[in-house]
Amino acid sequence: MTPATLDDFERLAGEVMAPGPFGYVVGGAGDEVTLGENRAAFRRWRLRARVLVDVATVETATTLLGTPVAMPVGLAPTARQRLLHPDGERAVARAASAAGLLQVVSTMSSDSLEAIAAASSGPRWFQLYVHKDRTVTERLVERAAAAGYGAIVLTADFPVSGRRERELRDGFALDWGGLGNFPDLGGVEFLPLMTALHDQQLAWTDLEWIRRVSGLPLVLKGVLTAEDARLAVEHGCDGVLVSNHGGRQLDRVVASVDALPEVVAAVGGRAEVYLDGGVRRGVDVLTALALGARAVFIGRPQCWALAVGGEAGVTQMLGILRDELVNAMQLLGTPRPSDVGAAHVRATGMER
Amino acid sequence: MTPATLDDFERLAGEVMAPGPFGYVVGGAGDEVTLGENRAAFRRWRLRARVLVDVATVETATTLLGTPVAMPVGLAPTARQRLLHPDGERAVARAASAAGLLQVVSTMSSDSLEAIAAASSGPRWFQLYVHKDRTVTERLVERAAAAGYGAIVLTADFPVSGRRERELRDGFALDWGGLGNFPDLGGVEFLPLMTALHDQQLAWTDLEWIRRVSGLPLVLKGVLTAEDARLAVEHGCDGVLVSNHGGRQLDRVVASVDALPEVVAAVGGRAEVYLDGGVRRGVDVLTALALGARAVFIGRPQCWALAVGGEAGVTQMLGILRDELVNAMQLLGTPRPSDVGAAHVRATGMER
Amino acid sequence: MTPATLDDFERLAGEVMAPGPFGYVVGGAGDEVTLGENRAAFRRWRLRARVLVDVATVETATTLLGTPVAMPVGLAPTARQRLLHPDGERAVARAASAAGLLQVVSTMSSDSLEAIAAASSGPRWFQLYVHKDRTVTERLVERAAAAGYGAIVLTADFPVSGRRERELRDGFALDWGGLGNFPDLGGVEFLPLMTALHDQQLAWTDLEWIRRVSGLPLVLKGVLTAEDARLAVEHGCDGVLVSNHGGRQLDRVVASVDALPEVVAAVGGRAEVYLDGGVRRGVDVLTALALGARAVFIGRPQCWALAVGGEAGVTQMLGILRDELVNAMQLLGTPRPSDVGAAHVRATGMER
Amino acid sequence: MTPATLDDFERLAGEVMAPGPFGYVVGGAGDEVTLGENRAAFRRWRLRARVLVDVATVETATTLLGTPVAMPVGLAPTARQRLLHPDGERAVARAASAAGLLQVVSTMSSDSLEAIAAASSGPRWFQLYVHKDRTVTERLVERAAAAGYGAIVLTADFPVSGRRERELRDGFALDWGGLGNFPDLGGVEFLPLMTALHDQQLAWTDLEWIRRVSGLPLVLKGVLTAEDARLAVEHGCDGVLVSNHGGRQLDRVVASVDALPEVVAAVGGRAEVYLDGGVRRGVDVLTALALGARAVFIGRPQCWALAVGGEAGVTQMLGILRDELVNAMQLLGTPRPSDVGAAHVRATGMER
Repeated sequence: MTPATLDDFERLAGEVMAPGPFGYVVGGAGDEVTLGENRAAFRRWRLRARVLVDVATVETATTLLGTPVAMPVGLAPTARQRLLHPDGERAVARAASAAGLLQVVSTMSSDSLEAIAAASSGPRWFQLYVHKDRTVTERLVERAAAAGYGAIVLTADFPVSGRRERELRDGFALDWGGLGNFPDLGGVEFLPLMTALHDQQLAWTDLEWIRRVSGLPLVLKGVLTAEDARLAVEHGCDGVLVSNHGGRQLDRVVASVDALPEVVAAVGGRAEVYLDGGVRRGVDVLTALALGARAVFIGRPQCWALAVGGEAGVTQMLGILRDELVNAMQLLGTPRPSDVGAAHVRATGMER
Repeated sequence: MTPATLDDFERLAGEVMAPGPFGYVVGGAGDEVTLGENRAAFRRWRLRARVLVDVATVETATTLLGTPVAMPVGLAPTARQRLLHPDGERAVARAASAAGLLQVVSTMSSDSLEAIAAASSGPRWFQLYVHKDRTVTERLVERAAAAGYGAIVLTADFPVSGRRERELRDGFALDWGGLGNFPDLGGVEFLPLMTALHDQQLAWTDLEWIRRVSGLPLVLKGVLTAEDARLAVEHGCDGVLVSNHGGRQLDRVVASVDALPEVVAAVGGRAEVYLDGGVRRGVDVLTALALGARAVFIGRPQCWALAVGGEAGVTQMLGILRDELVNAMQLLGTPRPSDVGAAHVRATGMER
Repeated sequence: MTPATLDDFERLAGEVMAPGPFGYVVGGAGDEVTLGENRAAFRRWRLRARVLVDVATVETATTLLGTPVAMPVGLAPTARQRLLHPDGERAVARAASAAGLLQVVSTMSSDSLEAIAAASSGPRWFQLYVHKDRTVTERLVERAAAAGYGAIVLTADFPVSGRRERELRDGFALDWGGLGNFPDLGGVEFLPLMTALHDQQLAWTDLEWIRRVSGLPLVLKGVLTAEDARLAVEHGCDGVLVSNHGGRQLDRVVASVDALPEVVAAVGGRAEVYLDGGVRRGVDVLTALALGARAVFIGRPQCWALAVGGEAGVTQMLGILRDELVNAMQLLGTPRPSDVGAAHVRATGMER
Repeated sequence: MTPATLDDFERLAGEVMAPGPFGYVVGGAGDEVTLGENRAAFRRWRLRARVLVDVATVETATTLLGTPVAMPVGLAPTARQRLLHPDGERAVARAASAAGLLQVVSTMSSDSLEAIAAASSGPRWFQLYVHKDRTVTERLVERAAAAGYGAIVLTADFPVSGRRERELRDGFALDWGGLGNFPDLGGVEFLPLMTALHDQQLAWTDLEWIRRVSGLPLVLKGVLTAEDARLAVEHGCDGVLVSNHGGRQLDRVVASVDALPEVVAAVGGRAEVYLDGGVRRGVDVLTALALGARAVFIGRPQCWALAVGGEAGVTQMLGILRDELVNAMQLLGTPRPSDVGAAHVRATGMER
């Protein structure tokens, strides 16, 4: 099968991956209600397409915190990508660079952040988990800054791991090999380790410390409420990433795109707002933009494409999404991302 | 099976058509959300039937831009109907004429517009795609006027082709033989050709040019928003056709019947409003009329009936729809189309 | 299987009846949307049960137009019941009489209205279809009055037959034998006959004529809107029966119980309001009462029970429904029908 | 299978229990609409998780009427637990005591309330059915007080038994052996006995009598409306337990969690509000707390776990629920039950 959609990559990945790792990638927490809602919520919005707009020239490019990117879609951080392909994060780095897209590299990468940076010629940000031993975090952040990462994406929704019951039930525990950024921590169980290391007392007042140590802009990842969006802005965040960790942390939390409007309203233009969770289509991207996001990030499709074809797979996947996005922008009558606004979406159903 | 409903023709067509062309006719863009919504949206409305109305005599006739038609249902333009039956558009022309109904002939017809006109003794309009080379369009419009077409139906929602993934996925590309109106363009791939030829810079200000060249009334096809409905009226359109191209262009746009109320309100009686997309039943016709449409157009059922039985098939299909409509008008207590109003529909569910 | 619910009788009837007649009884018009909605709409309401009410004594009895009945449930008129059992309407008459319930006898009964009256020792009303030849109707109404029928139930939603496509599709046409009230009309096709005979010009002003000829109270059956409910009262109706003919006439009309609130509000206590359509459970009865109905009528379960066991079957079915109703009244905290009010129901879902 | 969720215990119980008793435990009244809604209603709420809260220390403990308990989850009263395991209520007593949780013991227990008390070292309340012979009730209440039960939980929604049609249909009647509190009533059919004994005239004014005889705080179980919640408070109840008897009494009544908000509002802090019905997940507990419940009670999962593993099974089940709850409190950003409030939940779907 030649993949024609991002979902096709999921099907193909299911054929090439072992059931355990595949289940780890596709699964979510609890009953996977939020996992399903992330996608279903996009489908509840309807687009209001405009006609007779000049769409001969479509320009998908935008900027993220001032950095030019080829489209309002970035590569979300996902852990240990060598699970998916021997080239791991470096394959993603090469594909993202070639596509002119931003890659967000995980603290829990298979390769070291420096090795990934070496493979990258494009914009990259560094996703941060704050460890209990803050000197570990300070060292990590300094390394990221030195390696040319342009911003810190602080994950706020992982004080502990969520309950992924596929694994609990099967007694299945991933051991994906070493962590590139922590070469002395090889061969241990993954989620217990993450829970053991993470600082469960991370506070709003720590944001200033991270900004100071890194000297980089700060994006807060995992925001689902207007209250936290407001606090993020008040504590100096440059970006707010609406996310429920792909439905992998607390089941039953609100779908990303359902949380987006209240976050956008609370931020009030004082920071950039992004979204991840459930994006599979060009029309998903436009829906998020219409509701006020500046860009979206994609996680699982990146993993599937990496598993299926390494760098070439990611490149192919990004090409499909770009083609969809261009087509959707033409048919929505919005040749530039900044043309997309609140009037381009409405609820499903009867209004009169 | 003797068909008893329009859907029965779909089943029968599936038996006589090859999978590729059948998939082309029944399919839609993307995940086919809008395709399904076009029909589902009709089913969310409930009719409010009135009793003890004199319905001994039912009169389905109405006018479209002043032209008398036998019922508020027309034949929508669909491309290259020889795909479906050797007699193509001429079979539809004969069936529509016999039924006293309006046929809208596609720019992309298998036969030339003159040949179709020769087969027709009833009202006909000409659907227009504007080509990049505007002299091509001018010549086409002049021919349509000369051949007795009574109005131009300008398609506004096709700056480029939508993504029909059934075909992308299978690597399937239609080559339906020549285009009747462009005899020198035979044997090429269809959708790429359409995208290559179409003018993606068509603008509101071009409507005046089309009206002037054709000397005919103008209907704008593909309107889904109050904003565009208002612009259509302001730019002199005589009719507005609410349509999402049968769910074949941008997936996730609003269902036709869900867009209808806002378009009707925006037009405010200054033009006639029509609808296509999802009409399969006499009660669908009445629902659209209740929400303010003057008439509806049917696309896929026309194709299925043509494939199943040529002219006789289309005649039979139109007969079923007319019988349903008459019955529904009697049981709704609305013996004339003009009797149907906003009070004849309500939302499904609880109100108290 | 010993039937424990009314639905069990449907399953049992499916085993003893031929497919054609069974399909005729269970089927509806068009896509059977309204047929399904009649039941689904009941399930969208939730009961608000009250506690610590004295329910040691439950009294289900009420009156219908002053006539005492054992519970707020009557037997709806259904045509030609010998299709279901050799004893036909007389079996229902005996079962209803024994249970102290009201039977509404159809104009289209298998037995003559006099024969049914002879089998009945309980309250009975006469359902009327008005024929084009009004002397036929006058004679019929006079016979009903002479035979002790206590009211005329005029069917208003049958100017013509609805489209029951199960039959259209199969070329199946019922010939159920003679009509008891029209002994000279044996052996003809049923629905065409009904359409041919029925007066499609019946008007509000005719209600006075029916009242005068019969000298009986008048109930109007088939009302679905506030507008018609108001007209019914203004034209002297004593009762209004909210009904969509069991989903057998115009598909997509509103479910009975969804129409009930607006009818109750429009009637404003000036007439009794009843409902048929979708009643299968004691809790359905209470839901209708809570929304303002004085009683409900049951159609299909009567047919199934008649087919399954004749008089004994109907008796058994009515016993189950009475047991359910008593139990539901105790658990709702409403020991008398008059205790049930608007505060005993609410919509499904979240309110805070 | 090692159970990872409470639902896993249902699956395991289905393997070890005979179909009759298993059906009795899992089934509900009527069409089991309310049974299903109890769970579905929880899933319609979405959690609004907060981030960057210090959750290093989570404290699940709370108090119920002043009694400390380890988490806001209690063991609901369910009848005759020897059906499930030879150790019956005493196994539950030991598991609940070890977990620091409150057990509510049923009037209809297999063991005597004194024997259960002897097995318990933790907090326990006594669920009361009031018998027609009130001296029986007085004696029972005095025994409960003497045996150290800390409150009376008066069941208000059982004037008669609901209709559990699984049993009606199969002619299946439980005989579970003797009732521990009524040693002279062995070997009789259960539900008819309960209906025969129960006082169907229990009134609000009787609450004072129960309080006086017992000298204990009073919780009213089975409240679903604001009206009854208000009456409960006015008649001196210390607690109100929102419950529909697990969907086993009147089908179609509102789901517990859908009734909760109106009860909480009506009580207005004058009593503690609890809930049972549909709780299977840590996130269910938090949803109930967010809507104003002080604690929830679990019934069926207790039965399943008891059937699967006796005391050890119940202990395991409670451990899973506690682990889920702790995890959910960390990820919701609410390290103490009192941190959970109305702003932690919202409706599913689009808001902007």
